Amino acid sequence: MSVYQQNFTIQSAARPTFDDVTEQVHKILAGSGIKDGLLVVFSQHTTCSVLIQEASDDLNYWGIDFLMQDLVNVLEKIIPTCLTEGQYLHPGPEHIVAAQGRDELPSWSLNTDAHLRSVILGRSVTIPVADSQMILGEFGRIYFADFDQVRARERTVRVHIIGE
Amino acid sequence: MSVYQQNFTIQSAARPTFDDVTEQVHKILAGSGIKDGLLVVFSQHTTCSVLIQEASDDLNYWGIDFLMQDLVNVLEKIIPTCLTEGQYLHPGPEHIVAAQGRDELPSWSLNTDAHLRSVILGRSVTIPVADSQMILGEFGRIYFADFDQVRARERTVRVHIIGE
Amino acid sequence: MSVYQQNFTIQSAARPTFDDVTEQVHKILAGSGIKDGLLVVFSQHTTCSVLIQEASDDLNYWGIDFLMQDLVNVLEKIIPTCLTEGQYLHPGPEHIVAAQGRDELPSWSLNTDAHLRSVILGRSVTIPVADSQMILGEFGRIYFADFDQVRARERTVRVHIIGE
Repeated sequence: MSVYQQNFTIQSAARPTFDDVTEQVHKILAGSGIKDGLLVVFSQHTTCSVLIQEASDDLNYWGIDFLMQDLVNVLEKIIPTCLTEGQYLHPGPEHIVAAQGRDELPSWSLNTDAHLRSVILGRSVTIPVADSQMILGEFGRIYFADFDQVRARERTVRVHIIGE
Repeated sequence: MSVYQQNFTIQSAARPTFDDVTEQVHKILAGSGIKDGLLVVFSQHTTCSVLIQEASDDLNYWGIDFLMQDLVNVLEKIIPTCLTEGQYLHPGPEHIVAAQGRDELPSWSLNTDAHLRSVILGRSVTIPVADSQMILGEFGRIYFADFDQVRARERTVRVHIIGE
Repeated sequence: MSVYQQNFTIQSAARPTFDDVTEQVHKILAGSGIKDGLLVVFSQHTTCSVLIQEASDDLNYWGIDFLMQDLVNVLEKIIPTCLTEGQYLHPGPEHIVAAQGRDELPSWSLNTDAHLRSVILGRSVTIPVADSQMILGEFGRIYFADFDQVRARERTVRVHIIGE
């Protein structure tokens, strides 16, 4: 039994992005030498999620899978994009003081929608590994979702594998 | 420390189904000989989820737990059942071409609601194992949920256990 | 490789509560001696969830983080607080008979909203551990969420760690 860990980065945009990271994760698994166990793909960012979904084949004008845009459209109905302070409780006055102490612009905290959408979708997926392969079925792909719409950022995708 | 894996199948219907698989998972754990560790119940299907929920005692006319039908009713409000093309972006034209290349009927791709509902509920549960027992509290049961309403199918439930 | 497990309790109220348990979990990890692996924080209660979220800094009059109250407000739109029987299918008549057999008041079963909200948010989080630290990024905090509004209770938070 051993533990193997590796991370890589993706570049998000100032709108919801969904990066198919299946190939990167597959390469990390191959490099680990682990044949049977559990693999976790994890987001350390609290406005991001990791999802398993089928690829749509079709993409919208922004290059987003139709199925992921459908997900954004559904979430928009219950968690509208945060456009101004006062729309949600967060960010409150204490938060803005703290953010300015970190040299963040107040407008960067208008990502309440992303915090709420991402916590509903979850921060990680756990995938069984058997015979050196992730069990993803015929159609499963791993997506790193960044719901933050206030600014483009470099994001870290963490992969941890335990097994033998 | 060892890794143990086993899978079994369930038969879904052309409506949302929720199979209580607690006993099957318990038997796999007992057969594993693992006393302490982590157990993952996983769906490799992208229109299915695995959930931990209390049993309702009451069942509706379809044999579905009241609490699960309540869940479907809530999801229906934000993710209505997909009845026709154009209701969601997915399935788009490229997807239908790809599906027909796999000898799938176009109508089988009208499961957008199931893809969206299941990704919100998640593909797996991770359950602690202590003294050869799953920690599920007094009321926790494990359900395999198939949200796909376009056709009945045989589905695979994966159980992976790591521990000692 | 080893498995380490420990649990602790929190006291909830008769409204949604969100306890930041990051420090308790950190202490358990430190006591485990495990440097690299996976850590799971798990709720064995089917009206509770475990979440990773940024702290809000600001709190509402009940002492709840703004971001968590925003989450409750969003959930309230699709899963209204259960105030009376008949609002949801659950609890049905069989369930009430079973509950009374456990000396539970019928009104204690009016927690359908909590069962539905918590299953959407999930029962656990899985967190990578590297160099004896949980990977939570700059802002990630671990919250134990109790969505049950019908009565205050003592709840058990389970922590299981596998690694070396």
